[in-house]
Formats: sequence, C-alpha cells, structure tokens
Amino acid sequence: MLRLYYATGTCALATHIALEEVGAPYEAVAVDFRSQAQRSPEYLAVNPKGRVPALVTETGTLTETPALLCYVAQRFPGAELAPLTDPFALAQVQEFNSYLCSTVHVAHAHGRRGARWADDAAAIEAMQRKVPATMTECFELIEHKLFKGPWVMGERYTICDPYLFTIGSWLEGDGVDPRKLPRVIEHRRRMLARRAVQKAVAAEGTQIP
Amino acid sequence: MLRLYYATGTCALATHIALEEVGAPYEAVAVDFRSQAQRSPEYLAVNPKGRVPALVTETGTLTETPALLCYVAQRFPGAELAPLTDPFALAQVQEFNSYLCSTVHVAHAHGRRGARWADDAAAIEAMQRKVPATMTECFELIEHKLFKGPWVMGERYTICDPYLFTIGSWLEGDGVDPRKLPRVIEHRRRMLARRAVQKAVAAEGTQIP
Repeated sequence: MLRLYYATGTCALATHIALEEVGAPYEAVAVDFRSQAQRSPEYLAVNPKGRVPALVTETGTLTETPALLCYVAQRFPGAELAPLTDPFALAQVQEFNSYLCSTVHVAHAHGRRGARWADDAAAIEAMQRKVPATMTECFELIEHKLFKGPWVMGERYTICDPYLFTIGSWLEGDGVDPRKLPRVIEHRRRMLARRAVQKAVAAEGTQIP
Repeated sequence: MLRLYYATGTCALATHIALEEVGAPYEAVAVDFRSQAQRSPEYLAVNPKGRVPALVTETGTLTETPALLCYVAQRFPGAELAPLTDPFALAQVQEFNSYLCSTVHVAHAHGRRGARWADDAAAIEAMQRKVPATMTECFELIEHKLFKGPWVMGERYTICDPYLFTIGSWLEGDGVDPRKLPRVIEHRRRMLARRAVQKAVAAEGTQIP
C-alpha cells in the first residue's frame, strides 16, 4: 500500500491524479499547512525537506513530483502513462515535467514563498508583483510551443497531463489572463472530464477555477 | 551524431560529462553568453527557452538537464549510468536530480539572474545577499541526508554524480564555506580523477575550485 502525503492547493495533486489513473492501492494523508504540520518532527521524519508531496512505498520514501510521476508510470506500466522504453519520447516527457518544476512552479512560488530567496519585505513584495508576468511568459511558451494537443504530448495521455493541470489551476490566482491561453484552458476542461481527476480533486477539496 | 550546446560555467557541464562517460559520438558547441548568443534568432530556433543545455538528436532537440541525463543513460544502457529497470531506484535518481534543478540551481540563480523574478535593483540585491545561506542549507541537506557515498547513490556511479559535481563547482563562488561539506568536496576530488570529467572540464575551460 502506497501512502501519499499532500496538502490541498499544492503540486501533490499531480501525483494524486496519477495514482488514481493507474488504479494504485494507496491512501492519501493530508498535511495541514495552516498549522505548519510540514515542519513538525513527525513530518520531517517522513520528508526532511518539509514539503509535499512525499510518497511512502514498501521500499522507502520518495519526493519531488517529476520523480513520483515517473515512478507511478513505471510501477504500473499497464496504464501506459509514459513511453518508458523510448529514450527520446521519455526524455520529452521528462523535459516538460522538469520545466514545470524548475521554472513554472518556481515562478509561481515567488508570489507566496518569496522568503525562501530574500529576507526583506520590500524584496518579497517586488517578487510578488512580477508573478503575473513570469507565469504568463511560462504559459505562453507552453500554449504556443510545448503543448501538442489534445494532450500535452499529443494523442496519448501521459504523466505530463496531471502536472500541467495542477500547475495550470494556479493561473487565475497568479493574475494570469486565461483568455491568452485557450489551449491550456481547454486542456483543463478535458482533464476535469476524467474520473481520476474528479476523484483526486474531490478528495483534496481543490478549487479549480 | 549528437550535438550539445553549452556555455562554460553552466549546468550543461553535467550532460557534457555524461556524454563522455558513455562514449557517445557527439560534438559540443559553445554558446557565447557574453555576446548574448543564447538570445539570437539562430539559437532560439534550437531552443526557444534561450538557455543551455540543448541536445540535438537524430529525432529532435531536448532540453532540461534531468531529462538529458536520463536520455543519455537510456540511450547508452551499456554504461549503466542509471538503474533503468528498477522503478524505486530510478525514482531515487530522478528525485535527487529534480532537487538539484528545482531547488539548488534555483537558489544559485538568485545570485546572478535575480531579474527573472523581480524588476527593482534593491530586490535583486536582497536576493543576492541570501544566496550563501540558501546554498549552504541545500548543500547541508545533501551532505547529511541525501548523499550516500562514495557516489551520490552509493556504490554505483550514476547520472546524479556529474550533476552534483557541476552544481557543487559553484559553491565557493556563491559564498558557501566548503569546510562544512567534507563529503561533497571529497566527491568533487573523486570526480576530478575520472577521465570523462577531465575531458569535459578541459573542453569547456571550466574553473573548478
């Protein structure tokens, strides 16, 4: 039995959806960010980084969304969530997910977690002001260059889709005009029609714009 | 024939080393950051993100270091640079590399590329001031929790090693006291004894502290 630690509104939703897609036996455990439970000794024993998601497996605990998504795809290969045996196609999947984690998620984080990178209040406010521009720039690259359609990688649904859906659910909150991103928003609607997405979103109580 | 676009002093060195490790047929092409060649129309046609590394393959172009490293390992499986068929072990490799790209490299980038995340000069200076603390925090986690030794993943050299070596070569420049990180620095020395590392470092003209 796998155990996924998540908090509502975080990127843990991507792995949550993937677990539903493959029909994995798992339980989802909420970490209460309002009470700073991610900094508690109990949770730091699970994940010393003090973040979500963390996936506890029979072999040990894993963190970092791109790694978790690839793990779910490889552990449950029957669901065909990644082109595991094609080095180029798999690299394209990892390229997209790596861009989401290292550039897009990071751009978003400057609106809420600026204290990670500067100590003074004015600097943190300056970071917050730039979030709409940086998130728009990231998503315009996705809209016009990276997204193939109807799914991220084209005809086949992959582990890129729940991750894009998750980070894309932050757009309106980050001050991005969704009318600039018709393909990304259409993808959101397509995702919301999937039973696995509905189940994970309902279980977390996530608000999707 | 693969073609790797790199700039000296960037994370492209990790992929450069991996290509040497596997004995891949490749050519390395320098992108001159001083003349902003990464923003030229010619280079943006290769990589619309305007960054390095980019790896041109027979099938198409790939970007993002974790994806490139996994591609090299999977394309040249005889070199055994990643545990490709073990979902948990491969996820551990990806977890480490994902942490490097989305947290450690990002912490470093606030010292040189703060304009990505804020427009005013005081905010950019505030980000620069915090780099020694954030990079120290990241590398203390690596030193004490993530690094197994003698290689990142233990007895076996993997695609985590050239990536740690590359980002670790920035420590002194980022104001981190290397005496706090004896295992990381010993790993650097161990890497420098490898012929593949020597060749890539010499080809790029990289300064290793």
